[in-house]
Amino acid sequence: MVMERSIRERVPPLLTDLYQFTMAYAYWRAGRHQEPAVFELFFRDNPFGGGFSLFSGLHDCLLFLRSFRFTDEDVEYLRSVLPPDSDPTFFQFLRGLDCSGVTVNSVPEGTVVFARVPLMEVAGPLAVVQLLETSLLCLVNYASLVCSNAARFRLAAGPRRKLLEMGLRRAQGPDGGLTASRYTHIGGFDLTSNVQAGFLFGIPVAGTMAHSYVTSFSSLEEVWPQTLVAANGNRDQVDLISLTKGWLGRVCDLLGAEPGKIREGELAAFLSYAIAYPHNFLPVIDSYSVSCSGLPNFCAVALALCELGYRPRGVRLDSGDLCRQSVNVRRVFKLCSEHFSISAFHSLIIVGTNNISEQSMAEFNKRENEIDTVGVGTHLVTCTSQPSLGCVYKLVEVRGRPRMKFSEDPEKTTVPGRKAVYRLLDTEGHPFLDLLCLAVEPPPKAGLPLNCYPLGWDNASHSVTPAQVICLRQDVFTKGQVTHPLCSAAETRAKVQSSLQTLHPRHKRLQEPDSYTVALSEKLHNLITDIRKGSCSNSNFLLAN
Amino acid sequence: MVMERSIRERVPPLLTDLYQFTMAYAYWRAGRHQEPAVFELFFRDNPFGGGFSLFSGLHDCLLFLRSFRFTDEDVEYLRSVLPPDSDPTFFQFLRGLDCSGVTVNSVPEGTVVFARVPLMEVAGPLAVVQLLETSLLCLVNYASLVCSNAARFRLAAGPRRKLLEMGLRRAQGPDGGLTASRYTHIGGFDLTSNVQAGFLFGIPVAGTMAHSYVTSFSSLEEVWPQTLVAANGNRDQVDLISLTKGWLGRVCDLLGAEPGKIREGELAAFLSYAIAYPHNFLPVIDSYSVSCSGLPNFCAVALALCELGYRPRGVRLDSGDLCRQSVNVRRVFKLCSEHFSISAFHSLIIVGTNNISEQSMAEFNKRENEIDTVGVGTHLVTCTSQPSLGCVYKLVEVRGRPRMKFSEDPEKTTVPGRKAVYRLLDTEGHPFLDLLCLAVEPPPKAGLPLNCYPLGWDNASHSVTPAQVICLRQDVFTKGQVTHPLCSAAETRAKVQSSLQTLHPRHKRLQEPDSYTVALSEKLHNLITDIRKGSCSNSNFLLAN
Repeated sequence: MVMERSIRERVPPLLTDLYQFTMAYAYWRAGRHQEPAVFELFFRDNPFGGGFSLFSGLHDCLLFLRSFRFTDEDVEYLRSVLPPDSDPTFFQFLRGLDCSGVTVNSVPEGTVVFARVPLMEVAGPLAVVQLLETSLLCLVNYASLVCSNAARFRLAAGPRRKLLEMGLRRAQGPDGGLTASRYTHIGGFDLTSNVQAGFLFGIPVAGTMAHSYVTSFSSLEEVWPQTLVAANGNRDQVDLISLTKGWLGRVCDLLGAEPGKIREGELAAFLSYAIAYPHNFLPVIDSYSVSCSGLPNFCAVALALCELGYRPRGVRLDSGDLCRQSVNVRRVFKLCSEHFSISAFHSLIIVGTNNISEQSMAEFNKRENEIDTVGVGTHLVTCTSQPSLGCVYKLVEVRGRPRMKFSEDPEKTTVPGRKAVYRLLDTEGHPFLDLLCLAVEPPPKAGLPLNCYPLGWDNASHSVTPAQVICLRQDVFTKGQVTHPLCSAAETRAKVQSSLQTLHPRHKRLQEPDSYTVALSEKLHNLITDIRKGSCSNSNFLLAN
Repeated sequence: MVMERSIRERVPPLLTDLYQFTMAYAYWRAGRHQEPAVFELFFRDNPFGGGFSLFSGLHDCLLFLRSFRFTDEDVEYLRSVLPPDSDPTFFQFLRGLDCSGVTVNSVPEGTVVFARVPLMEVAGPLAVVQLLETSLLCLVNYASLVCSNAARFRLAAGPRRKLLEMGLRRAQGPDGGLTASRYTHIGGFDLTSNVQAGFLFGIPVAGTMAHSYVTSFSSLEEVWPQTLVAANGNRDQVDLISLTKGWLGRVCDLLGAEPGKIREGELAAFLSYAIAYPHNFLPVIDSYSVSCSGLPNFCAVALALCELGYRPRGVRLDSGDLCRQSVNVRRVFKLCSEHFSISAFHSLIIVGTNNISEQSMAEFNKRENEIDTVGVGTHLVTCTSQPSLGCVYKLVEVRGRPRMKFSEDPEKTTVPGRKAVYRLLDTEGHPFLDLLCLAVEPPPKAGLPLNCYPLGWDNASHSVTPAQVICLRQDVFTKGQVTHPLCSAAETRAKVQSSLQTLHPRHKRLQEPDSYTVALSEKLHNLITDIRKGSCSNSNFLLAN
């Protein structure tokens, strides 16, 4: 609801490149603006050196299409930037424009997808579908990129470890941060620190304290109130400071910690926080020194809480060697648990943060560590190793005639024609090939061999027999209406995991995966050959004159 | 105006990390929420391996502070995510919260700044200034990063070449794209493709056509109208197709181009565009082959336009070796100009686009080329080589007492106390040192030597004599009001260039610059020494008990 209300504000139809309007005017001037045209949205390479990507952003695209309309103010601005001799009737045309003539056939949001497969097909009046280009790319590009990045972190983390997104301060401004929270949750993160994302999208939020909370305290005199009642409902106020001091002495003895190195301000901060949140005690313990101060202070306060019947939750580590420290912290938890017979210390969690990258996750898998929850910010939301997916939107058909772009860069050449896309599965249910066919072709049949031309195989043909055939795209927008139920974030999140589940491990490998085959049907391959020939002979008009 | 209207929607006060609220509650619970506190915002390393950064985002921060207020809906949501036993009075406190008790002392937007210098000082009630952290970081981080990136492109491009930002489709969603357009303009870009950025911020917009426009045409029959009147006002309709065909024959003869390789669809697209925009003819010429088709087609249409008294504008190249192609294109322009005595061909511009990076710009400086305008997208807006600045916000004082964070990572240790920041200039007017002093110290005096402790010099002191002393920060927000005039984008853009102008070339060098000195005053240095000692003895409370 909240989303829908603001889509017009977030993605106004002017949020596009100027050339979309200059082209729209030229089409309109030539009377071509209503010609039926078909564009395809795809990307050219799987991101992060991986073997797959996840398609996201469709939900926003559909809301954008539904609300696509120019206001008087928009049109006045456009009039001021187009050449002064532009025909004024064009601006009336713009004022009446909407997406009632547009249809979108798309891969469902949250599906595993591959480079070169057309993910969305946008059909409609030439001028309108051209105008949509930049906005659709803007909505799909980053959403798909950051969702794919999150899915890689999830694969690296395994199903057990909790993942917390905390990148708001490092994102490209407010909306970048919100988009990151939303699509990393969809990609497999469990929690976000971003409160607005919790509010808008229902993502579970998490967070306890920053170092500034700890350093804002300098003495135990700042702790107020100093008492806490027991968890069992007994209303007697217990002096938590005295109780904790007693425990601190015993902890220091047990751990051989020097009382002279304990930070009083840190202890005051922990006490104050425990009194505010006796059921949710999870401080950051590296403001001074984990082993000399943070850890003994935590244990003392947590033991005092346990004595009062509360269950402390754990600690956060935010600097240094997280693996080594977490092992030491766990060892101390076990020691306390055994020595003081406090079972709650068995279930304390250790949260690790501090510039976590995919490489850090790989390290967590190789080195001994006791980290239960990982918080990831910068590397997750900025997608450091590849900060852009590079989706493009290419014209493939006008007035029923296939269009193709040749290029000085061969990989920029496009695949012409309106298509259907099928995913072929093997006998074990793993997808092994995505097949691009002409829309008019009959679909491939399970159990029947077919001949195709894998992209990048230099025109070599290949025979395959699918055990199962899935039609990859569906109609999601017709005549100005969203024709497919909009999925909630939770539904899309589940879709991501089930889609990844079917993918064979060899394609899912984060490093040097086997590349997945995308192929053209024989008919589509022949069409390209014909166009290459045809367009050559076609263009000899000068000689013909 | 448009900005101000939407800041509450763009940066709601819930757009922050949850731990800001959990800490605010704990402060409130301990009765500490009104304690006067001071935070500083700074970054730890200059981005992109450079010697400087540009401070941006202040304008948005001020609007955010001015509008900072929680709605009933916000507070209800917070109630649902904080523990159920939280004191309900806290939520009434939140509902009445604003920034009327906050003061901000800041470096002016668009100033050249350096790592470790506190750029903003935010003072006010502890709970409030803590709550502001994430939002301020989010608004400053990317704005400063992308502005600094743009400034580097500008330095690499030199003052002559025009720079066009075209990154909307690669940014982190809609607002990321808008922020990029705004701050790259401020950083030195001349133009943007982003129409909404033109609308909101008054940035000049540019753009003509995409390849899809070219490939949407297949024959000259699609050109309509086919006629154009001369620029001189003579209303006779001239058949532009015939006129162009004549020129195309002559151009092919002159260039030795094969008429059989000319693409009819491309010529049709160019003609159609020229008829719509006779004063603004600037097509993209690499849809098929620049030398075999795009360039002859352009020349023919442009010569026809010239014959009718129009001035064509130029061409865009979007693939292949831009340097080599631009030289060839310029040679052909000169050839046409001389051969056909058409002076307008002397002033045609060549626009280069296609994945331009800072390295491409360096290449343009080394290799012969004729590119007048460079369009930059992905590498500009995503800041590929360092996609995050890493600004932090650290507590330096509470209740008039300096606070300091020690850390397992030494570079994460903070500089305590409320400060004044001075920039010292040499006799030539170049800044050579930024000096952090205690706020209560008298400012350094021009012409008088002073002793200081450069950061990173391992406690060694250093004597310097400034020829001029500038107080780097100013009060910009007091008692809920913006106290310094908000600058327009144009003013800030001018500020960036003048600020860069004073910087010595050795610090401005894009590769391996000399590092700029940031130093502590003797008094500040002594304070740190005292705190290090003091906090050790201070914490012996366990022994003292």
